[in-house]
Amino acid sequence: MANKTQEDYLVINGRRFRSRLMVGTGKFSSPQVMMEAIEASGAEIVTVALRRVELNNPEDDLLKYIDTEKYLLLPNTSGARDAQEAVRLARLTRAAGCEPWVKLEVTPDPYYLLPDPVETLKAAEILVKDGFTVLPYINADPVLAKRLQDIGTATVMPLGAPIGTNRGIRTKEQIEIIIEQATVPVVVDAGLGAPSHAAEAMEMGADAVLVNTALAVTPNPKLMAGAFKKAVEAGREAFLAGIPEKSLKAQASSPLTGFLRE
Amino acid sequence: MANKTQEDYLVINGRRFRSRLMVGTGKFSSPQVMMEAIEASGAEIVTVALRRVELNNPEDDLLKYIDTEKYLLLPNTSGARDAQEAVRLARLTRAAGCEPWVKLEVTPDPYYLLPDPVETLKAAEILVKDGFTVLPYINADPVLAKRLQDIGTATVMPLGAPIGTNRGIRTKEQIEIIIEQATVPVVVDAGLGAPSHAAEAMEMGADAVLVNTALAVTPNPKLMAGAFKKAVEAGREAFLAGIPEKSLKAQASSPLTGFLRE
Amino acid sequence: MANKTQEDYLVINGRRFRSRLMVGTGKFSSPQVMMEAIEASGAEIVTVALRRVELNNPEDDLLKYIDTEKYLLLPNTSGARDAQEAVRLARLTRAAGCEPWVKLEVTPDPYYLLPDPVETLKAAEILVKDGFTVLPYINADPVLAKRLQDIGTATVMPLGAPIGTNRGIRTKEQIEIIIEQATVPVVVDAGLGAPSHAAEAMEMGADAVLVNTALAVTPNPKLMAGAFKKAVEAGREAFLAGIPEKSLKAQASSPLTGFLRE
Amino acid sequence: MANKTQEDYLVINGRRFRSRLMVGTGKFSSPQVMMEAIEASGAEIVTVALRRVELNNPEDDLLKYIDTEKYLLLPNTSGARDAQEAVRLARLTRAAGCEPWVKLEVTPDPYYLLPDPVETLKAAEILVKDGFTVLPYINADPVLAKRLQDIGTATVMPLGAPIGTNRGIRTKEQIEIIIEQATVPVVVDAGLGAPSHAAEAMEMGADAVLVNTALAVTPNPKLMAGAFKKAVEAGREAFLAGIPEKSLKAQASSPLTGFLRE
Repeated sequence: MANKTQEDYLVINGRRFRSRLMVGTGKFSSPQVMMEAIEASGAEIVTVALRRVELNNPEDDLLKYIDTEKYLLLPNTSGARDAQEAVRLARLTRAAGCEPWVKLEVTPDPYYLLPDPVETLKAAEILVKDGFTVLPYINADPVLAKRLQDIGTATVMPLGAPIGTNRGIRTKEQIEIIIEQATVPVVVDAGLGAPSHAAEAMEMGADAVLVNTALAVTPNPKLMAGAFKKAVEAGREAFLAGIPEKSLKAQASSPLTGFLRE
Repeated sequence: MANKTQEDYLVINGRRFRSRLMVGTGKFSSPQVMMEAIEASGAEIVTVALRRVELNNPEDDLLKYIDTEKYLLLPNTSGARDAQEAVRLARLTRAAGCEPWVKLEVTPDPYYLLPDPVETLKAAEILVKDGFTVLPYINADPVLAKRLQDIGTATVMPLGAPIGTNRGIRTKEQIEIIIEQATVPVVVDAGLGAPSHAAEAMEMGADAVLVNTALAVTPNPKLMAGAFKKAVEAGREAFLAGIPEKSLKAQASSPLTGFLRE
Repeated sequence: MANKTQEDYLVINGRRFRSRLMVGTGKFSSPQVMMEAIEASGAEIVTVALRRVELNNPEDDLLKYIDTEKYLLLPNTSGARDAQEAVRLARLTRAAGCEPWVKLEVTPDPYYLLPDPVETLKAAEILVKDGFTVLPYINADPVLAKRLQDIGTATVMPLGAPIGTNRGIRTKEQIEIIIEQATVPVVVDAGLGAPSHAAEAMEMGADAVLVNTALAVTPNPKLMAGAFKKAVEAGREAFLAGIPEKSLKAQASSPLTGFLRE
Repeated sequence: MANKTQEDYLVINGRRFRSRLMVGTGKFSSPQVMMEAIEASGAEIVTVALRRVELNNPEDDLLKYIDTEKYLLLPNTSGARDAQEAVRLARLTRAAGCEPWVKLEVTPDPYYLLPDPVETLKAAEILVKDGFTVLPYINADPVLAKRLQDIGTATVMPLGAPIGTNRGIRTKEQIEIIIEQATVPVVVDAGLGAPSHAAEAMEMGADAVLVNTALAVTPNPKLMAGAFKKAVEAGREAFLAGIPEKSLKAQASSPLTGFLRE
């Protein structure tokens, strides 16, 4: 089993990753703080919302901080309100020289930033045909997840809870069904506010998690990022080891033989 | 903060421990499997139910497997049904040469193995006066926890769920109050069935956790023990870093500036 | 307020109902048992899967048991796997003389019977244009719910948990957002396995609930139906009265003035 | 079964009650509002903290509002910090002419008002010997509950959550064990903040519930009290009818025969 875990890669569209923790780049107090956290997280995939200003002005953007030899920069379509906007944004990032990987986010609702299932599917169909490796952010909807993997997305990324809420996995039943039916990696995205939430996702059999807010808004992002790293590994190892069933009846851990009764 | 975590000891009755994970020794398939798991857990405190046969027959007991230079052997009074039995058992272990530390368990109920608050308090009073370092296993009862620490127990050990159920922290509100009012370390004991449960306890501010069944009954105790080690560290580090508040409203992790709207 | 509750109608597409409990007709042990339960439930809307055999053979179907003067018979498209099948089925029911109301169910997944968001939206668009009053069964997806109400569905019917699981409201956060954003009645459908689940939905502000399995598979459907009736009323009345906030700190219900301290 | 529910009495110490909802009298905005709520609740047992001023000054107390022909006035020992204070207070109420029934509350903690297990048991022993019908308020501690019923208390009253928090049944596993082992009625007391919470307690098999804060602090106590009445009845009837098991797999409520597939 030791060997097994050494070889336990996350594989997305044929590409192997040792880390099962992806991190976002929003909300950090400074690029330096962000980079320390990313480093401590052990992440190999880093999502970033590429704004035009950044694409045109490399001096001013995140790209100069993130070593793209070391990290796969995963542009997201954050801010896109429909399929057309998402597709346009994805193509701009490719035109700017990024690899054709995209975290697809279509969020017409500016308040809760929840994803649109219909527009997400539409954009995914176009981008997959266009040669993109598509990682779609979705509600915890098993039927949608199945449709997306069937048209060729590289993962599905169901939400645990609305973005930025830190509430943990509030959609457990649905994510369990998604995992059961998955033919591509399942990445739990959004809502994970503490390491225990990330560990729980991995124990359920998720292939990876994505975290951002919980790292960015803590007083100590570096320490928190290391904590998430350990928690993701812990959850994965427990899943591989085999998690005991829950039971109603107590069972003594350390039964005493007749001794005291004599 | 790096320094802070390096110096982040668990201190029980003046004795310092680096590890915040205690492990039990029941139910393992063999002593070898048990020792591999204990090693992987990084635990420094190991609980054991000392049966008379073991005390009389050192060739046949756990003691020859556990290096008492490396681990603090913490005898428990497992099987005691009232204060008198528990006190008698604690004294026997001391007479057999163990250090005067005792995990106090008084469980008249043979089915759920839940602790008796009245007999536990009574036994604790006697054993504290007797010079023992007493770590009592209790229901998640804030008033009882306070009474125990007031009479001089070295910790309080509220249960997360009944022993052996693997159900996690089902007594969260009560344990939060115990932690808030604690003047001694709070060790969450019983019911923790997965690393995420242990991480959650530590994130709530518990000082340590004790795990047994979840390690002993998994197909791969060594891997699971390492997972719990990481999860406990993750939960502790997250607690130290500062866990973000939960919120109802979503907040964008990676907001997009005007770009797409032009 | 007494007046207020007397006037507290559920209004769907201009039609008023006193009852906020809808019931399904599947799985009952006999039509007689079903009718007793429907009667006891106080429901005014009864869903039914109209099979062709029934449409052609009125002697053999549910229609002869259900008094359509007293109950609004709401045909559902149960069994439809895509929009086309659902639309075809809805039109058949209208051709057979039913009112043009339809509970829209599009469930490609035969195992969990979860709804397809894309096909449901597509079918809803066609049926609304076709003059149907459409009540769509959906995953607890706030963006989809908004799109459906925007195109003119008469309600949205998010699931609490997968059909037949009796697990209660496992999608609470999402349903709260749906309710907050709703411009049409929100009917929680599927997964409600006990009266407390139905009361909880109503306390959250849902406008109605639909229950079937919990009534049909209990040993005493009539008694259970009456229980659900009371629970739905209780939840509604509590919502109207104003449910107190949850708090962490205890507050004495019956504080004692100085008396014992003197 | 209709007959069965007609005869479904709550029996405490040989005395029969039709209602399974007990109410407290604290925190109401006025005696009139309180009485309207009590009336609407259908309660037959009303708890009250008898202060000395009231005992001495009947013009100014609750007693003139509550018809003791209609309601069993159940004095509580609210404010007692130890067994001695509780016993003294109980005897004072009897001396003042109340029936020898007492809701035993011993709460040394002025903040969370949680009960003391040791002092509660001690007071219960004295009061039972003294001829009182004792209904003790306790933490959700199965071993303590068993000890209390074994010494002759008339009920056990475990808390769902700390008093006044409205958080519902946060101690579910423990209360389930208490119910399983009970030889006297189990009354869930404290923490019930909405009708769904009360229904859930009854569905679990509790014999009754006690509610106060949720009625007293809502804008419409009368309407809320009626809601709790219905919810308690709903939960009880569902318990008697037989609540279906929860399942993971969905099962169609309204299966479609071959029709659409032809």
